[in-house]
Amino acid sequence: MNKGCLLVLSGPSGCGKGTVVKRLLERNPQLRLSVSMTTRSPREGEEDGVSYHFVTQEAFDKTVEQGGAMEFARCGNGDCYGTPAAPVKAWRQEGLDVLLEIDIQGYRQVKEKAPDAVGVFIMPPSFAELSRRLYERGTESEEKIRQRLETGKQEIRCAEEYDYMVVNDALEEAVKQVEAILLAEHARMEEMRTIIEEVLNDAQTISQ
Amino acid sequence: MNKGCLLVLSGPSGCGKGTVVKRLLERNPQLRLSVSMTTRSPREGEEDGVSYHFVTQEAFDKTVEQGGAMEFARCGNGDCYGTPAAPVKAWRQEGLDVLLEIDIQGYRQVKEKAPDAVGVFIMPPSFAELSRRLYERGTESEEKIRQRLETGKQEIRCAEEYDYMVVNDALEEAVKQVEAILLAEHARMEEMRTIIEEVLNDAQTISQ
Repeated sequence: MNKGCLLVLSGPSGCGKGTVVKRLLERNPQLRLSVSMTTRSPREGEEDGVSYHFVTQEAFDKTVEQGGAMEFARCGNGDCYGTPAAPVKAWRQEGLDVLLEIDIQGYRQVKEKAPDAVGVFIMPPSFAELSRRLYERGTESEEKIRQRLETGKQEIRCAEEYDYMVVNDALEEAVKQVEAILLAEHARMEEMRTIIEEVLNDAQTISQ
Repeated sequence: MNKGCLLVLSGPSGCGKGTVVKRLLERNPQLRLSVSMTTRSPREGEEDGVSYHFVTQEAFDKTVEQGGAMEFARCGNGDCYGTPAAPVKAWRQEGLDVLLEIDIQGYRQVKEKAPDAVGVFIMPPSFAELSRRLYERGTESEEKIRQRLETGKQEIRCAEEYDYMVVNDALEEAVKQVEAILLAEHARMEEMRTIIEEVLNDAQTISQ
């Protein structure tokens, strides 16, 4: 059985990656979402082990020191976030695909640790549309939105570092493209070497 | 608009690539099949421009000399076969995907001329199954089949040179995998650079 694929999804706030992730998980039973660990307190409605793994600073630091994080970061306010390595590794070895929804700093760390990770950048169809989506949510201040758009611009400037780009114009099309990437990655020759050997061994047996 | 993808399909005789090609063409209106040129005479039922472009030796040599063939070969009996470069180029520039069904020698030449070509090796599920399929056709002598199987073995040994491998166990699954490869290739970052520029230009306009 082949190892599962490690798929990293990133994209600016408002690009719709949360919805893409949700649809992907609904439609692909072989896909697992990595749950991040964080030192911040749970917010209302957040469930431990589902939204995040809520851990103490001590536990977080220990995991990082022991190489147990695929990527991690400390926010300006001191809160720490990271991706636990153990479940990712276990799932992939079971042949399950793993999805990480992280930012570019996280993606860079993951690519260092797991060069076979596949990066997909979710792109809004235009910047105007990104802006429209953020304003339409209507939950944030003008200043906060401007800040998100500025960060988004920086992220789009780094998009080239990813392996693939999916433009999220129509949700179902975007989801299908990510699924196609997963399927294609499983058909890459590097994944298939053992099959060549098997068929050639089979040929040997038949010729005898 | 992005350039179309150049997809090369190869695989041993009996792997079912002819059927895969047929289904792909039925299901994907943006896909064009390259028609080879040959110096041999048409066989019964073969139509010029559909089965092959039937050309004189002089015309064939002239096309090759002028760099108008993506790949070509001369068979043991002197018949020449080749892929005309002009339609492939024209289709790709229109954004249409192009399919070549050629052997490994042809694939190597195509990769030299068009390094962005994508090679897919169609693999039988096992060598026993390949053998079974060839015998089942019931149209060829034992010796001819043995010869095909021997050639098949050589081809499988070179399969690693391709970018992807699709195991043709169940036809529809195999066709879906090739379609996924096409879709994924269109989402590769190299194809998407212009979109990054467009969105960033858009961002510039909005900020002003």
